[in-house]
Amino acid sequence: MKKLLTTFLLTALTTTTVCAATAFTDAKDALDYRQSAFTLIRHNTGDIGEMLQGKVPFDAKRVQQRADALAALATLPWDGFRTAGTEAGGGDAKAEIWADFKDFTAKADKFQLDAKALQTAAQSADQAKIKAAFATFRGNCKACHDKYKAD
Amino acid sequence: MKKLLTTFLLTALTTTTVCAATAFTDAKDALDYRQSAFTLIRHNTGDIGEMLQGKVPFDAKRVQQRADALAALATLPWDGFRTAGTEAGGGDAKAEIWADFKDFTAKADKFQLDAKALQTAAQSADQAKIKAAFATFRGNCKACHDKYKAD
Repeated sequence: MKKLLTTFLLTALTTTTVCAATAFTDAKDALDYRQSAFTLIRHNTGDIGEMLQGKVPFDAKRVQQRADALAALATLPWDGFRTAGTEAGGGDAKAEIWADFKDFTAKADKFQLDAKALQTAAQSADQAKIKAAFATFRGNCKACHDKYKAD
Repeated sequence: MKKLLTTFLLTALTTTTVCAATAFTDAKDALDYRQSAFTLIRHNTGDIGEMLQGKVPFDAKRVQQRADALAALATLPWDGFRTAGTEAGGGDAKAEIWADFKDFTAKADKFQLDAKALQTAAQSADQAKIKAAFATFRGNCKACHDKYKAD
């Protein structure tokens, strides 16, 4: 019983720390935050994709702006999965996220690194380099969504 | 009549260009985008504010992360006011925005510059410098909301 109580208190303390560190009021606040981040990521990604596909004219400066935004945006959603209560789900988040948070975090880390690589590629204004970096970056979306996002 | 038609066609062409340049599907898409950007801006700003007020412990690294995010996020919402149809309003946006778009854009530009100054101040890890830069940065919210945001 004492061990159980200690575990409970430690969990409560850790949770409080996590709350303070992420600065969300509650799980709903965290959900709004991560969904907002994904909305911006989706849009900026989509625009680069359409330029590379030729659906809209390729504009190196605009690709750069989008890639700059993505490098920053890619760092943001993850805190929104760490606040106490978020493990109950919300939005399209599957329980698998919290069941294997280490793998989820590893995928999030790779996504951020690939966003930085895309930013570097964008600086070259070389369409072939941008295409390659973009394909790698985009691959993260599917890899993570297949396992962790409800359709 | 011919002049009217020319004006109409020019407007249509300009509108199409604006659409393509901002890459929003429609005004609703643009609204979602700017609201998402403001959600992230509000949260990152609020967290720095609480650290400076001593509501949560001051953490120079965290201030830096927030300020880095804000420097990028501050550039994002404005495209969401430029897509055709957005001038009809939506969310808390007041008609005054489109009635004086030049002033609105000047305010948006100042906001971005002040976000960059906050990012530079955060790099110093000097609380007095950060406080001053933050006050200037925060001032933009009120200056713009008073005139352009419905309460």
